[in-house]
Amino acid sequence: MTSIRRIVEESDTPAGRAFDLAVQTAILVSVISFSLETLPDLSPETREVLRWVDWVTILLFSAEYVLRVVVAESRARYVFSFYGLVDLAAIVPFFLSTRLDLRCLRALRFLRLFRVLKMARYSHAVRRFEVAFRRVREELVLFFFATCLLLYISAVGIHYFEHEAQPESFQSVPHSLWWAVATLTTVGYGDIYPITPGGRFFTFVVLMIGLGIVAVPSGLLATALTEARVEDAGSTEVRVPPESSS
Amino acid sequence: MTSIRRIVEESDTPAGRAFDLAVQTAILVSVISFSLETLPDLSPETREVLRWVDWVTILLFSAEYVLRVVVAESRARYVFSFYGLVDLAAIVPFFLSTRLDLRCLRALRFLRLFRVLKMARYSHAVRRFEVAFRRVREELVLFFFATCLLLYISAVGIHYFEHEAQPESFQSVPHSLWWAVATLTTVGYGDIYPITPGGRFFTFVVLMIGLGIVAVPSGLLATALTEARVEDAGSTEVRVPPESSS
Amino acid sequence: MTSIRRIVEESDTPAGRAFDLAVQTAILVSVISFSLETLPDLSPETREVLRWVDWVTILLFSAEYVLRVVVAESRARYVFSFYGLVDLAAIVPFFLSTRLDLRCLRALRFLRLFRVLKMARYSHAVRRFEVAFRRVREELVLFFFATCLLLYISAVGIHYFEHEAQPESFQSVPHSLWWAVATLTTVGYGDIYPITPGGRFFTFVVLMIGLGIVAVPSGLLATALTEARVEDAGSTEVRVPPESSS
Amino acid sequence: MTSIRRIVEESDTPAGRAFDLAVQTAILVSVISFSLETLPDLSPETREVLRWVDWVTILLFSAEYVLRVVVAESRARYVFSFYGLVDLAAIVPFFLSTRLDLRCLRALRFLRLFRVLKMARYSHAVRRFEVAFRRVREELVLFFFATCLLLYISAVGIHYFEHEAQPESFQSVPHSLWWAVATLTTVGYGDIYPITPGGRFFTFVVLMIGLGIVAVPSGLLATALTEARVEDAGSTEVRVPPESSS
Repeated sequence: MTSIRRIVEESDTPAGRAFDLAVQTAILVSVISFSLETLPDLSPETREVLRWVDWVTILLFSAEYVLRVVVAESRARYVFSFYGLVDLAAIVPFFLSTRLDLRCLRALRFLRLFRVLKMARYSHAVRRFEVAFRRVREELVLFFFATCLLLYISAVGIHYFEHEAQPESFQSVPHSLWWAVATLTTVGYGDIYPITPGGRFFTFVVLMIGLGIVAVPSGLLATALTEARVEDAGSTEVRVPPESSS
Repeated sequence: MTSIRRIVEESDTPAGRAFDLAVQTAILVSVISFSLETLPDLSPETREVLRWVDWVTILLFSAEYVLRVVVAESRARYVFSFYGLVDLAAIVPFFLSTRLDLRCLRALRFLRLFRVLKMARYSHAVRRFEVAFRRVREELVLFFFATCLLLYISAVGIHYFEHEAQPESFQSVPHSLWWAVATLTTVGYGDIYPITPGGRFFTFVVLMIGLGIVAVPSGLLATALTEARVEDAGSTEVRVPPESSS
Repeated sequence: MTSIRRIVEESDTPAGRAFDLAVQTAILVSVISFSLETLPDLSPETREVLRWVDWVTILLFSAEYVLRVVVAESRARYVFSFYGLVDLAAIVPFFLSTRLDLRCLRALRFLRLFRVLKMARYSHAVRRFEVAFRRVREELVLFFFATCLLLYISAVGIHYFEHEAQPESFQSVPHSLWWAVATLTTVGYGDIYPITPGGRFFTFVVLMIGLGIVAVPSGLLATALTEARVEDAGSTEVRVPPESSS
Repeated sequence: MTSIRRIVEESDTPAGRAFDLAVQTAILVSVISFSLETLPDLSPETREVLRWVDWVTILLFSAEYVLRVVVAESRARYVFSFYGLVDLAAIVPFFLSTRLDLRCLRALRFLRLFRVLKMARYSHAVRRFEVAFRRVREELVLFFFATCLLLYISAVGIHYFEHEAQPESFQSVPHSLWWAVATLTTVGYGDIYPITPGGRFFTFVVLMIGLGIVAVPSGLLATALTEARVEDAGSTEVRVPPESSS
C-alpha cells in the first residue's frame, strides 16, 4: 500500500515519475480532443475517433481517481482537497446526464500539469513563487477589495452621466459594471463607451485612480519574487560569480 | 456619552463591532438594492420591495448620521470631514426633490466598507499602504501633472494631424483629448483613432513616451509597499523562518 | 541688467516669482483659448473675444521672448536651447502666413508649466526624477531600440500571414506597422486585427515577447525613482520615524 | 585567415568596424526596400529600382554568408547557430522558387542590428540585460506556462458561457482562445467579446487573476535589471557622486 501510495502521490521514484507522466499525457490528450470536438465542421469519422478518445481518457481518469482515494492516507482530506474536487469534477459530468453540459469542467484538470514544473530545475522557482505569494497575500486581498469598490463606484458614476444619452448601453448599474471592468483593466473592447463630456471626464478621473490600483498587484508579486530569489541565491550559493563568469 | 461615542466611532468593543457590522450590512443592502432598481425590466412587486428597502436604509443612515453628529467630540470636524460629507451626501438627495437625480451619491457610502479591512489581520496591510502612499505622494503628483501635460500636447498634436482627414472625430482639441485619454491609458475603445500616416506616426511617438510615464505610478506604489512590508517584517518579527518552515 | 536677468531667469526673489506666475498664467490662458477656438459651434462674439485673447497673449509671449534674449548671459545658448526654440515656435507661426497652420506649436509652451514644480516642495521630486532618468537612460535607449525591432519584425510577419486574407487592412508592411504599434502597446483600437489562424498564433507569440519588453521601461523608471528616494531620505533625514509617527 | 576572421567576426579593429557598418547599412537598405515593395501603388520605375536594390543586397548577403562560413573557426557551429540560420534564411528564399513567398524571413536579419548596441557605451547595458535575463529565466518560463494554462482554461470557460448566445464568434474552443489572448493581454480589439451576464462575470474573474500573472514577467525583468545595474555601479565606480555632481 505504502509503495503504491508513493508511486501515485510522489514523483521521487522512477515508477512515480512514470505514473505522473502517464496521467499528464492523458490530460493533454483529453484536453486537445475536447477542444477539437468543439470545432463545427468535422467529418463523422473524426468525431467517432474523438468520442473514443473521450471514453478512454474518462475511464483512465476514473481509475486514477479511485486509486487516489484508495491509497490516500486520509481519504476525506483528498476528496475535499482542491485537486480532489478538480479530479472529481472532471469525471462526474460524464456519468450524469444533466441538462447543463459540464464536460468543460474537465479543463480544470489542466491545472494538474503544474506538477510538471515541480520536477527538476523549476521546483525552486515554484517554491519561490509560493513564498512570494504568501508574503503579499494580504496586499493582494486589499487591492482586490479596492478594485471591487472602485468598479462599483465607477459603474454608478458612469450610469449617472451616460444613462440619458445612451439608454441602451448604460441601461442599469449592472450593465455599467461591465463597462467598468473593460475600462479599468484597460481591455477596452469598444462595445460600450461614454459619449457625453461629463462621462468622458469621469472616465479620465476613474482611470487616473484605477491605473494606480489595478496594476499594483503584479508589481507587488514581481518585487516579492525578486526578494525571494535574492534570499534563495544568498542561502545556497555565492550570487554574482556564476552569472558573470559564463 | 463617552461610551456611546466609543461604540459609534471605534470598533474595539463587542458593541462597537456590532454597530459597525450593522452599518456595513445596511450599506451593502442599500447599494445592492440601488443597483437592482436601475434594471429596466422589473415587476411592480419587486419595485415595491426595493422602494421599501430604500426607505428603511435611508432612515437608518439618517439616524446614524444624527448619532455621529451628536456624539462627535468636535461636531464641526466630523460634519466637514471626508466621511462626514459622504454620509451627508448619501441622505440629503432623498429629502430634497431636485431636478438632478443625485441618489447615486449613495454609492460613495461604499467607501465606509473599507472599515472592514481595519479589523483583524488586514489592519497591518492598510497601515503599510498608508505609509507607502505618503512616501510616494510627491512622485504621484508629479506624474499626474506630467500625464495631464502629455495628454494636452497629444490632443493638440493629433488634432493637427487628423483634423482634415476626419473632421467629425477630431473636430476640436477637447474632442481630441478624449482620444488622448483612451490611447495613453491603452484602453483603446476604437471609437476614434488616427488614419493618416502622420497621425499614426505621432501616435507611435506619443505612446513610446506615454507608456514610460502612465505606468510608473503603480510601479512606485508597488516598490514603496514592498519597502514598507520589509521594514514591518524587520521590526516585528524574524522574517524568513516563518515563511520557509511551513 | 543682472537684476532683471535674475527676475526673468530665476524664481528666488518675489519679483522673479511674480514674473514666473504671470508667464504661466498667460500660457494657461493661451492654451485654453486655443483649445476653445477649435470648437466648431461658437458664436461670433465668442470668436471675437478668443481672437483678442490670442493677440494679447502672443504680444506678451513676444515681449517675453525679446526680454529673455536681451538678458541672457549667452544669447546664442538661449536661442538654441530647448526652451528657447519652444518659445520661438510659439510666436513665429503667428507672424508668418504659411499654408500650414502651425499655431498648434504653441501647445509646446505648456512644457514651461513644469517650472511650477521646480518651486517649493516638488523640487526634490523633480531632482530625483532627473537622477533616476539619467541612471536608466542607457536601458531606456536599449529597450526603445528593441521595441522598434520587434515592431518591424511583427509588421513583416503579420503582413505575411494576413496579406492574402485581408488585402485591404494589411496591404503593405507600413500599414502592418500600424497594427504592430496598436497591438504591442496593448491599445488595440480594433480597426485592424488578424483573422487567420496563422496570424492569430503569430499575434500570440509576438505579444508574449512584446509584453515582456514594452512594459519594462516604466518598471525600470519606477525602481530607479525608489532608489533615488531612499538615497535622498538617507542623506537628509532619518527615514522611518517621521512617517510612522503621524 | 585569422586576420580576415577578426574583421568579419569582431569589431575591435577599424576594418572590423567598417565591415560591421557595411553589413548593417546593407541590412537597413534591404529592410526598407522590402517594406516599400509591399506598397500597392508604386510606379513601374520605382519597382524597377527596388528590384535592383533587392538583387544587390542579396548578392552582398550571399557573399557575406560564404565569407562567414569560410572563416569560421568551426563551420558547423556557425551554420547551425542562431545567427547562422538567420543569415541563411535571408538568402535561401531568393534562390528557391517555392509556392510560399518566404522573402519576409529577411526581416529576421534585422536582429543583426543588435550588434550596433554591442559597441561603445551600450555594451554595458546589453551585458546587464543578459545577466538579468539569465537570472529570471526560470521565473519567465514558469509564468509563460501559467499564462498558457490560464489562456486555455479561460477559452474553455468563455466557450461554455457564450457558445449559445454567440454561436458564430465563440463557435469552438480554438476560436475562444483568440478571445482569451486578446483579453488577457488587455489588447481588447473588440472583434469578439462576451454578452451574457455569466460570460461577463467570468471575464471579470479571469482578468483579476490574469492581470496579476501576465504583467509579472516585465516587472521581474525590470527589478533584475535594476539589481544588475546597482551591482555594476558598485563594482566599477563610486555610485552617487557622478550623478549628483552634474
